[in-house]
Parts: sequence; C-alpha cells; structure tokens
Amino acid sequence: PGKGKGRKPRWAVRASEMSKKTFNPIRAIVDSMRVEPNPKKPMISLSIGDPTVFRNLPTDDEVTRAVKEALDSGRYNGYAPSVGYQSCREVIAASYSCPEAPLKAQDVILTSGCSQAIELALAVLANPGQNILVPRPGFSLYKTLALSLGIEVKFYNLLPEKSWEIDLKHLESLVDEKTACLIVNNPSNPCGSVFSKSHLQKILAVASRQCIPILADEIYGDMVFADWKYEPIAVLSTNVPILSCGGLAKRWLVPGWRMGWILVHDRRDIFGNEIRDGLLRLSQRILGPCTLIQGALEHIMRHTPAEFYHNTLSFLKANADLCYTALCAVPGLRPIRPAGAMYLMVGIEMEHFPEFENDMEFTEQLIAEQSVFCLPATCFEYPGFFRVVITAPEEMMMEACARIQEFCEQHYQGSEVAQDLECDK
Amino acid sequence: PGKGKGRKPRWAVRASEMSKKTFNPIRAIVDSMRVEPNPKKPMISLSIGDPTVFRNLPTDDEVTRAVKEALDSGRYNGYAPSVGYQSCREVIAASYSCPEAPLKAQDVILTSGCSQAIELALAVLANPGQNILVPRPGFSLYKTLALSLGIEVKFYNLLPEKSWEIDLKHLESLVDEKTACLIVNNPSNPCGSVFSKSHLQKILAVASRQCIPILADEIYGDMVFADWKYEPIAVLSTNVPILSCGGLAKRWLVPGWRMGWILVHDRRDIFGNEIRDGLLRLSQRILGPCTLIQGALEHIMRHTPAEFYHNTLSFLKANADLCYTALCAVPGLRPIRPAGAMYLMVGIEMEHFPEFENDMEFTEQLIAEQSVFCLPATCFEYPGFFRVVITAPEEMMMEACARIQEFCEQHYQGSEVAQDLECDK
Ligand SMILES: Cc1ncc(COP(=O)(O)O)c(C=O)c1O
Ligand SMILES: Cc1ncc(COP(=O)(O)O)c(C=O)c1O
Repeated sequence: PGKGKGRKPRWAVRASEMSKKTFNPIRAIVDSMRVEPNPKKPMISLSIGDPTVFRNLPTDDEVTRAVKEALDSGRYNGYAPSVGYQSCREVIAASYSCPEAPLKAQDVILTSGCSQAIELALAVLANPGQNILVPRPGFSLYKTLALSLGIEVKFYNLLPEKSWEIDLKHLESLVDEKTACLIVNNPSNPCGSVFSKSHLQKILAVASRQCIPILADEIYGDMVFADWKYEPIAVLSTNVPILSCGGLAKRWLVPGWRMGWILVHDRRDIFGNEIRDGLLRLSQRILGPCTLIQGALEHIMRHTPAEFYHNTLSFLKANADLCYTALCAVPGLRPIRPAGAMYLMVGIEMEHFPEFENDMEFTEQLIAEQSVFCLPATCFEYPGFFRVVITAPEEMMMEACARIQEFCEQHYQGSEVAQDLECDK
Repeated sequence: PGKGKGRKPRWAVRASEMSKKTFNPIRAIVDSMRVEPNPKKPMISLSIGDPTVFRNLPTDDEVTRAVKEALDSGRYNGYAPSVGYQSCREVIAASYSCPEAPLKAQDVILTSGCSQAIELALAVLANPGQNILVPRPGFSLYKTLALSLGIEVKFYNLLPEKSWEIDLKHLESLVDEKTACLIVNNPSNPCGSVFSKSHLQKILAVASRQCIPILADEIYGDMVFADWKYEPIAVLSTNVPILSCGGLAKRWLVPGWRMGWILVHDRRDIFGNEIRDGLLRLSQRILGPCTLIQGALEHIMRHTPAEFYHNTLSFLKANADLCYTALCAVPGLRPIRPAGAMYLMVGIEMEHFPEFENDMEFTEQLIAEQSVFCLPATCFEYPGFFRVVITAPEEMMMEACARIQEFCEQHYQGSEVAQDLECDK
C-alpha cells in the first residue's frame, strides 16, 4: 500500500507473490476447457481421482461405525497435539511397521490429508532456491506446492514402454548440489503403475549414491491388483532416509475426511532430530486433522475387514482389464496396462488425429461429441496422453469406452499399417 | 546436501529455514518450564484454551446429531471443492450476513480451523519483507505464522487500564509503507476483552486513513457476557476491506474438529478479484476441512438451540465474576475484568514478589507449590501478567483461586499502602 510520511496513503491491496506462485494446473487447464457436452448423451466424467463420485464404492461399515463411536464418546472434540494423538500415532506406527523398517509412535505425524503430509515434508526438506526431483508424468500437487514455496522442480522421465519405470539415467543426470529431495510416487497417479522390488532398489541406489532423501508418496500403498506386489520403499532402504506420505483417502475411500500421515524412516539417523523437530514446528501452524477421524483410526485400522480391501481391488482390476482391452482395440490409442491405484493412461497417436493440435483439443472434442471427460495428460506434464479414472460402475466404463471408440473411429486418419500396430505388451 | 560433479556426495540433510523460523512461543515457554507440581495437591491446569478439557462443557446434542446424519448419509466422504461445498458456503454466508455487511456464498472460504483461516489471510495479504500490526498482548499464532512466512511483526499496545482497548496513537505510529495488514482480535485471547462500537469505529478510522486492510480474528465472535454487545467489525466498516476469520472451535465447543472460515468483506471492491483469487489458489494447497463436518454445518447453524449458547455464556460469566472477585482480594494481583471469550488476565505487582524474576518464575513456582498452572503472559508478549482460562468447573475455579491466594499471601512482600490499592474498576 502507498503509505509513508508526507504522502497521502491510497488503497492498493495486492495479492501476495506466494499466492500468485500457487498454481493448480489441473484447475487452470480444466477451467480453460470451455466446452459443452453433447446434450444427447449423458455426461460421463472420468476426470477426478475421487472414488466416491459414482456412489458405487462406499467405505466399509466398520469405518463409519468407528467415527460414530468416536463422536458418541464425546472424547474427541478437543484439541489434539499438533502431530496427532499419541494413541493414533501408535496405531499407525503399528499398522505400517515391519521388521525391515520398524516404526514407533514418534515416527508418525498425522496431517490434514496426504496433501498436507506432502506439504510438510517438502517444506522441511527444501529451501527456496533448492530443487526437487519429480516424476513426469506425475501428480500435479508436487509442483504446485514446490513453486509456492519457491522451490524449483526438475522432472525425471517415466518410461511408458517399461510400464512407467523411472528412466534412472535421466533421473541421476538431473541431480545437482541444490537437489533437496526425490519424490517417488508408487503406486502412481496418473499411471496406475507399481514398481517392482528390483526397480525400487535401483531407485534407492541412485538416492544413496547421490545422498538425496526420498519423499515417498504412498497414498495408493497396498492398492495393487492380484499378481502384483506392493513394497513400501522404506522396506528396501538400508540407508536412504525416507518420509513416506499416506492417508485414508484412497484405500478407505474417504478422501474428504482429510486424514493423512508422514512416516519417518531414518535408520541411519541421517534426518536426526533436526527433521523431526522441523516437522513438529511446521505442524503447529494449523494443527492436525479432525479429531473425530483421529478417534476412529484405531478401530478403522483394526476392524476394516480384509474383504473390503479385496473387493475394492477386484473391482478396480476388472475395470482396468475391461478398459485396457477395449481401448487396445481402438485405432490410434495406446493404453498402458495399470497394475494398481485407480487410473489408466492412454497414449494418443496424434499423427493419426490431424484435426487436433494436442491432447487438450482431443479430450475437449471428446466431451463435445461424446460427453466423456478424461483429463488431458498435459495436466501431468505429459502431452499426448489422457488419463482415465477407472472407478465408475462397469457399465458406465463400457459405455465410455464404446464412445471413445466411436470418437476415435470418426476422427482417425491413417494407413492400414498404422492400424495393424500392436498394443503395448 | 554436498552434491556436485567430481566430488563424492555426502549425507547432509538439514531442516529448512522456514521450519526453523516456525516457532510456537507457548510450546517453547511451556516446555522450558521443567517443574513438578506439588504431589500433595491435584493439578489444576488453567493453561490451554480448550473448553473441552474438563468434560463439563460438552457440545450440544444437535451438533453431534448433525455430524451423525452427515456420516450416515454417505454423501460426505468425497472431496469437496478446496474452498468448501457451495451449500456450506451459502449457509455460513446466510448465518453471518447482515444488512450493513451482506455476505454471499462466494465471500466465504472454509478452512481447516481458524488457524488455517488466519494462515491463508496472512499469506494472501503480505509478502516477505512486509509487516503486519499485531496486538500486544495477543494470540501467539499471528507471530508464528508471520515469521514462518518471512513477514515482520510490529506489536501495538493494548491498554489494561482501559479494558484492553487499543492504544490508537501507538497503533498509528507503527504504520509504514511496508504495512500489509492490521490484525484485530475481538473478543480477545488472552484478554477476554470486547471492544465497544465506538472503539471499533476509531480502529476503522485509523485503517481507513492509512489504507490498511484488516484481518479480524473473530473466533470468539458472539461469545460476550450479558450487558456487553459484540459487533463484527465489518458491520461498522464503510470502506476498509476486511477478512474476518472464524470457526466452530469456541462457540460450539469443538476445537478438535478443525472447522474454520474466512468471510470476505469488501464493499468498496478494494480487494477486488485479486485477493479472492489468491485465497482460492492458496486453498488448493492442502484442500479444505473435513467433509463430514462440512456436511453437518447447515444443521449446526440452523438447529443449535439458543439456550446452548446462552448456557455456555452464563457459565463463563459466572466463572469470570467469581475469579475476578476472588483475585481482586489477593495481595499483589490486579485482575482485569473480562467481558467475553474464556480468559482472564491478571497483573502481577512484581515489586511485591521480589523472589521472582518475572511472570514465568511466578507461574512456575505456582505449579511447584500449589499445582495450579496458568500461562505466563510472556507467551503473549506481555510479561508481568498471567492468563487464567475460565472454563473449569466452578468448584475447581474456586479451589484454584484459593490456592493462588495462599501462594500470593505466602510470597507477598510489601507495605500496608500497597495492599490498600484498589482493583481496577
Ligand atoms: C499421488 C497422490 N498423492 C497425494 C494425493 C492427495 O491425497 P489427499 O486427498 O489425502 O490429500 C493424491 C490425491 O489424488 C494423489 O493422487
Ligand atoms: C484468538 C484465536 N484465534 C484463533 C484460534 C485458532 O482457532 P482454531 O482452533 O479454530 O484453529 C484461537 C485458538 O485458541 C484463538 O484463541
């Protein structure tokens, strides 16, 4: 504001630099897509990673019961410590502890969703002017948070032809003296990929060689389809210190409840007190997650039946298979088979769709003609692909795939040869 | 970390500058008070502003019922927009709208507690290097958040002898060209004071003359004792733009639920789109408050019975009177009568307690001898006072006052004259 002795002040309120640097690309891209769906076809939105929107994936009754009990007890209305109730930290530690990567209550910090877990982890590990290594394609929040904190982002490539494994050479080439952390998202949004044990070991070897701590975004942890195995990266680490971020959002199908956590894995005492103390300080800025959900955590962890997890995953796998198979048959599309999470990435052979400049125009027109909304992978820094959310009811998935097929058949331009190309795998 | 071509990297993970700048003085002061209570007397802790700790102030049944209904509906498990559900924003707008300061849904942003409301408001209004004007004594979070964001804090004085009104001359003398906002906390923590209409108008006159927007921390809004009237500052503002921060924590006695909000008052369009847009962007960093509580908001706002509010306030007023009267009779103490919120500030005539260096030593020894824990007002940048939380059951308050009296009588050193001095008012 124009204040100061002598001059008459005038109103000049401006939004801060930080608010201007805070930028959600998905919002920006989606908001810029001013397109009306085809009024003759009901809209099918496969765009946002919220498993609850179709009402076909309710959480388990035990989860609801747990919150009701916490509410009725009247014991969870007051403030909890900013890092969460001690008893809840113990429960999470016990749930995620394993012999190779043991956890105690003091290694757990409860947060307002996995988003705040990532925010705190980034804010404690990196200073403005430093950089972090982020997957491409990848979840957009990493960049949003980093830029808002003045931290630089360097993207390392994932390889679609290798089921989205990390291009390790490229990753290592990006490291410099200002690299503060490596973000590893496994299972992946938007890829639905799940890293093998040996790939995780190679990632750890890079981090170890370069002495870079890992921020493991494991919000889709344990959400892998039969035949695949999920390994928390901390289990394989002998020395690399890891902040693993997770929460209830996806596996328990309650993203709105905003319950997340950070698990501190630091067997060689590289983080030491300093990082823990930093996380504690940062947690005091806005205090932790809703105490009612904290009060329900123990019951949720102990009593959610195994079938609940199992049913969710069989449903997701069935949809993944259905969608993958259907889209493999579509001219000009190259779906990549997912192994977990709730997404499927589909490559667009743009040369066969000369009408469209890019993935944004492609997905925009898909809305206009077929009322099917998939996110252009430009949202994930990966043009030329789109992401399908696979949580819709089976019939709706089939209908969506059929419409996508119709759309592609109408717009596909190409040689016989191109059509004969095989799908990946 | 020590990375770079040629050199062998070594582990050197340091906590960020921001985490080190994030500092909660209450925690630091309380943690530094390593003192054991007197084992012969049960501890009475009147230190933290959590109305639920004594189990004597449950929230209303309608409030609990509202959450249960939201839970049972199954409709509030998914993500809400980062600024909150539209319907909830409407409800809060309707609840706080008044003819002089009308509110629409788009003027409301839901946050994770009033703490996050304050964080977002500060983060959007001020840049690193700018300063904000903060009350002394005052709630410590303002400074914690400001310093963590690199914003400077300038303290303006409150005047105990004028029931904690602002020293307006002092306030205005602090304004410079880098002043980004004025924080007004009414009713006040730690003072329990409530500003009159005419005082609020004078504050607005300063802000208007100096063209400084106001961050109004009104988390204790409507929590004023009979005979006093609470005016939201926005009602009296003709031009000064105001971000009013509030929430469920205190009035509904559920601080753990982390439901807060920002009300944007900007009748002269001085904030314009810019501040609203900035708040929206910032809200996307960690998303909003727990959706179950959002789902309960409408019922809470419409169905919490008037007697609930009334009963809480009569209870608080009775305790305030009791405590004020009791402490007035204590040699060497100068309580200031509160008019709202849930606190009472007590001046210590340090010259009559030569054994103690300051308010910290005084309150420490009070724990050691009498097992009564009150926060030294050094926590609020106001040495020489201590703060009493007045939410304990009446008997416990009486017992605490009796013990404080015994303590002061044992340590008081002074002339007859000093004891004859009257209490304020
Ligand atoms: C990879 C990834 N990490 C983190 C999050 C954020 O999780 P939460 O909703 O718990 O903040 C998401 C949400 O979609 C995600 O996909
Ligand atoms: C003056 C004041 N503002 C804000 C807050 C924070 O409120 P919340 O618990 O909703 O974050 C408090 C809590 O004690 C307070 O006293």
